[in-house]
Order: sequence, then structure tokens, then C-alpha cells
Amino acid sequence: MSERRQPVLGILGGGQLARMLALAGAPLGVKTLVVDSAGDACAGQVAPLVVADWTDYEALARFASMVDVVTFDFENVPAETAHWLAERVAVSPVPGALAVAQDRLAEKTLFRECGLDTPAFVAVDTREDLGRAIAEVGAPAILKTRRLGYDGKGQFRLKTVGDADAAWAALGAQGAAHGLILEAFVPFERELSVIAVRSREGDFRTWPLTRNWHTDGVLSLSLAPAPDIDELQRRATELARTLAERLDYVGVFALELFVKDGKLLGNEMAPRVHNSGHWTIEGAHTSQFENHVRAVLGMPLGDIGARGLSCMFNWIGELPDPAPVLTTTDAHWHDYGKQARSGRKVGHATVCAPDARVLAERLNHIAHDLGRDGQAQPALQVLG
Amino acid sequence: MSERRQPVLGILGGGQLARMLALAGAPLGVKTLVVDSAGDACAGQVAPLVVADWTDYEALARFASMVDVVTFDFENVPAETAHWLAERVAVSPVPGALAVAQDRLAEKTLFRECGLDTPAFVAVDTREDLGRAIAEVGAPAILKTRRLGYDGKGQFRLKTVGDADAAWAALGAQGAAHGLILEAFVPFERELSVIAVRSREGDFRTWPLTRNWHTDGVLSLSLAPAPDIDELQRRATELARTLAERLDYVGVFALELFVKDGKLLGNEMAPRVHNSGHWTIEGAHTSQFENHVRAVLGMPLGDIGARGLSCMFNWIGELPDPAPVLTTTDAHWHDYGKQARSGRKVGHATVCAPDARVLAERLNHIAHDLGRDGQAQPALQVLG
Repeated sequence: MSERRQPVLGILGGGQLARMLALAGAPLGVKTLVVDSAGDACAGQVAPLVVADWTDYEALARFASMVDVVTFDFENVPAETAHWLAERVAVSPVPGALAVAQDRLAEKTLFRECGLDTPAFVAVDTREDLGRAIAEVGAPAILKTRRLGYDGKGQFRLKTVGDADAAWAALGAQGAAHGLILEAFVPFERELSVIAVRSREGDFRTWPLTRNWHTDGVLSLSLAPAPDIDELQRRATELARTLAERLDYVGVFALELFVKDGKLLGNEMAPRVHNSGHWTIEGAHTSQFENHVRAVLGMPLGDIGARGLSCMFNWIGELPDPAPVLTTTDAHWHDYGKQARSGRKVGHATVCAPDARVLAERLNHIAHDLGRDGQAQPALQVLG
Repeated sequence: MSERRQPVLGILGGGQLARMLALAGAPLGVKTLVVDSAGDACAGQVAPLVVADWTDYEALARFASMVDVVTFDFENVPAETAHWLAERVAVSPVPGALAVAQDRLAEKTLFRECGLDTPAFVAVDTREDLGRAIAEVGAPAILKTRRLGYDGKGQFRLKTVGDADAAWAALGAQGAAHGLILEAFVPFERELSVIAVRSREGDFRTWPLTRNWHTDGVLSLSLAPAPDIDELQRRATELARTLAERLDYVGVFALELFVKDGKLLGNEMAPRVHNSGHWTIEGAHTSQFENHVRAVLGMPLGDIGARGLSCMFNWIGELPDPAPVLTTTDAHWHDYGKQARSGRKVGHATVCAPDARVLAERLNHIAHDLGRDGQAQPALQVLG
């Protein structure tokens, strides 16, 4: 028997996504190596950690020499860093896909080219642009930074056209540096996401659509498979496939969608595993994390079917008491090993069940014990 | 929000059991620290590793100061080491339980005291003892070392009473050092195991019984829940509970059982998570690994119910092609990250299904593609 060498996955960013990727890779025999500028990055608890920032090319060269493929926990890795690495080692997804997802203007333009409608949008670089954009888009609208925004950061909501000065005061400086975009506010009926995966050979799959609820711009609750989606699954899959092929995408990505008048609108794309896909760890035959590891390392993809119904609670800021989750059948606790901090994603819990009635019972029980009835309420309402 | 400190689990031994414990602990927010004498111990890929042997008390003192509780990947840790550690840090299970499981004579004596029948056995220290023991137990019989045996190691099978000299030649030297035991060979109908867990507060649970098949003394295949067990689940649970309470056991343990004439006989006890419980990772609501971590750290236990039917293939020596498992619905690959070596446990695969018919289809498909029909055959026969 010859000496074997295990594949090594390199991950840029050492947060909870890297942590869950490393945990999913281990049973596949995959070793993980993580880069993060923080010595206490939580993925470092389950995989070796290189402490370096995105411009420490000496450390990045050493990192590149130790891994078979590089992927991302964090999509705002500078494009230069991604390109520099791609000259030395396989990088998945390709830096070009990352670049599109980093720029709201490029992203929404691509959506439209791929046949996915979006809310009306106009690029804004100056105060004068903003005036013209408001005249075109109307109000309410949302002014966003083109780059480096996530979880509602870098956004200003204009209730009326009179809010233009306040919006410019809040984001104008960032606009001068990286550009802004004004988007029409869409009074959507539902927020959905589709998590998709594409292999090196072009095998393409989407997990069942997830219904999501946000609070203050941050994901609070997900329900999957999203009930009452009729033809939307087929349509979302087709759009995600078009996008993936256009970008020659390899790995997992998420497409956040609005439903308005029964039609899908593209909100944004995340070129990585996504918070709204965490339910797949227990709720699907193969999780988004496992299929991402498989895809970027050239292994065959696993079945993306759901095992039943799942609901995910996001824990923001600090963890609640784990006991109600730990003691409920088919409920699963995920502590990311982080320090508590206002607004920070510190963990989640996924509650699975064979049908809507049992899921509602389990959610009710957990939410009640935690005093989180409000957080669970939107899913309970949908479950009936 | 105050600084939080995550619990740290210390594990003696860094093999696949430690690896799977660490992977199960991470979502609970538990950090793991492993001690092994081998620098390439496979648990070291997913948790920090202290390289030290069992008598390196300087390293063990450092280890003890860094962890909240110590548990075992390997039951043959010297009793002195376990006792030494127990004076400095919580050790679960207690060293006394380990000592019983390390000595086949003490173990079988305890089984009988707890109401669990065993094959006839006699202690053997000398060649004369062996003669007397054979006269009492008859043939066929198995001569075993009292200590340090596992996976069929340290055993000699006597087909007739005439094999006494050959048996003594094989094991007599070990007998002089640690003692031997002669056990009647029981032509059992089935091999079962019960995996049990007990919390600090005495909450006691058993997973559904597992049916096991061994090849050359090493587990080859497990099927769970074991079909056609009638009253055996209740009886095995009662016996395991008696044993656990007697030993004031905290954590997971396994009881290997024979079924003869519809009655249970005790074969051996493993004071740790067990190979025949690996199916619980995907096949039960809470795995043996997660519940062991919870128990030893004082967390509430999780539901031990099965999700459906599961069958586990053990990979011995080297891994087969993973593709047939990776591409089958609800089949799960476990590569321990070890080098191939004859007789070594290097991985396993668990195939889950909602019912016997679907499980048989999936097993047939995988076994056929791998050329492992023989390995799967006993389970397929039972599934009908």
C-alpha cells in the first residue's frame, strides 16, 4: 500500500463558514488550512490557522504552497489577493465570480443579462447622480454602497425624496471611494433564497428553496423547503444555472430573491456557502458545506434532497440557553465558538421534523422556553 | 456581555474515536485537546494534539491544567495514568469503570453479578490451570489474555482439548504476565450490541440494538435498529442500566452481546464510544459521539431515537473507491485520515433509508459497485 496524501482545502477567512466547511470536509478525508488576520478566528478551533492579512504575500505564498485549492469564507477578500493566489494555486470559485458578487452594480447587471429581473437601480457616484437617480427610481428607495456591504451594513433607506441629503451625509464619503447604487424599495411578499452547487464537470444542483425572514438587515429565521412555491423552484433553478454557467462557477453559491406578484426578483448573490443554507447540515441528504468541499476538490456531488421540513433560528449577539434545543427531538445546536458581541452571528439552531404539524410543535416548544416567540412567529404562521 | 470560556474536552488517545468526538463537540461549542504518542494521530487533524506517552507526567500535568474533563479514545490507557489524572481533573468514565473493562475476568464476573449470563469461563494463570479449565469448560473454547485484547487480538481458539499445548505456546507468556481466561465457545445465533449513555444526573438511555457481523475478529458490518429483537431491547437496556449504575458510569459505553436460544449472553464491555455505534452519526437523532460529549461535560442528553434503518460498512486496511457511497442518497462517507495498513480501521460508510426495501436497494447498489457483495450479504439476507 503506497503512502497516501490527503487533499488540503485552503480557506480565506476563518469565521463560522470556514469552521463548518472544515467540519464537513473531515469525514471526506479533507484537511483544512485557514487564513485569517485574527488569531482567535473561530475556524482555528477545528483546523490549523495561518494568521495573516490579505496583503501579507509572504504568508499567502506559504499558504498557497500547502493547499490543493483555495476557497472563501468571506467574499470581500480583495480582488488583487484572489488574483494573486489564482496565479499560484487553484482558486474556486474563480476570482471573476467573486468580483461580480463584490459589486452590486455588476451583480444586478448580470442578473438582468441572465433573465432575472431586479428592482429598478441606478449607479450613483455624486450628489447630483443621487438627485437624478431619485427622480428615476422614486421613493421609497435604498441607497447602498456598491462594495463591501453585507448584513444590512452600508445601506440607507430613503422613505421620501426629501431624505436625499440625509442619505448622502450617511454614505456620500463611501460613494466617492467605491461608488453607490440607488435601488427601488420593493414591497415584496416573500424573501426566498436558492442555494446552488456546480461541480468542475458542470453537474449543477439546487437545494429546495428556503424562505427567509430578516430583522434589521440580518437573517433571523429560515424555513425549508419553502412552502407554496409552485413553479418558483424550477424558475430559480434555471436562473441559478444560467448564472453559474456564465461565471464558470465551481462550488456553492446563494441567490437571494424577492417574490413580488408571484414573480422572482434578484436581490443579491453570495459566492460562497450561505447562512440561509445552514439547515442543510441536518435537513438535507448532503449539506451545502459538504457539497462545496466536494465541488472545489473535484469529487462527485451528493444528493441535495430534503429529509423533511427544517427551520433555522439565527443567534445574533449572544447565545440563548441551549437546553431547550438540546432536549428537543431532531433539533440541533450550533455554537460557533465566538465571543458575544452586539450584532454578531454567534450560532444557530436547526429544528427538523417529518411534517409541518410536528415542526410547528417543536418550534413552539423551543421558542416558548427561550422567550423567542417573536423570532419563531413568521414560520409558525406559514406552517399554519 | 462578559468574556465567555468554552468548555475543553481532553481525550486520551488520538484515533478515529477521538476524531469523531472532536467533530461532534465543535457544534456544541466544545474545544478538544488530544493526547497521543504518535505525532500523526488522526484526531490531530481536527483538534490540537499533545504528543506524549502515558508515563510522561510532565506533559500530562500540562494537559490536565488545560481541560475541564478527560475522557478516552482508547480503553487500554494504563490504570495508573487514569488514576493520576483523576487526582488532578475530572475523568469520565471513572478509572474504576475502565479497570473493570480492561480485565476480562473482572468484566465477566461483574456481568454475572448484574444478572447478565456469560459463556462459561475460568481464570488461567499456569499450564496446569489450562488443563483444569479445559476439563471444566470443554471444547471448542477460546483462550484470551485477560488484558489488552481487542479486535480479536490476544486470542487463541481451541477446536479440541488436544489444542491445549498450541494454545499455551501462543499465549502462555502473556498469561504469566497478565493472566488468561478460558471461555466456552458459544455457537451463538446473532451478535448484538447495545450502546448506552448515562449523564452525571443519572439520566440513562440506550440507542436501538445494533446487529453486528465480524470477520477475523474485527467488526465488518452493522445493521440498526436490529430487526426481530422482540423483548431483547428491554432486557439489554435493563442490564446496561444495572451495570452503569453499579459503576457510577458517566458517558457512553457499549455492551457486546450474543443471542443464544433467544437469550442474551454478555461478551464484553467497551468503556467508550464504539465502532458498532458509528451508524448513530446519521442514523439517530443524536449520535453516540455527541451524547458522550454532552454527558461528560454535564449537558442534557439528546434523543437517541433512530431516523430509519442504517447499515454501516467498516473499511479495514485501506479505503475502497468513495464514489459509489458519495453518489448514493443518504449514504455517508467517513475517512479517518489514516495511512492504509493491513488490519487497520481506516474508515466506514453508513447507508440510511426510511425502510428495509430502500436500504437493501442502496446496499446492493453500493456493494455491487465496490465488489463488496460478500461484505453486505449478511445484512441483505436479514433485510429480505
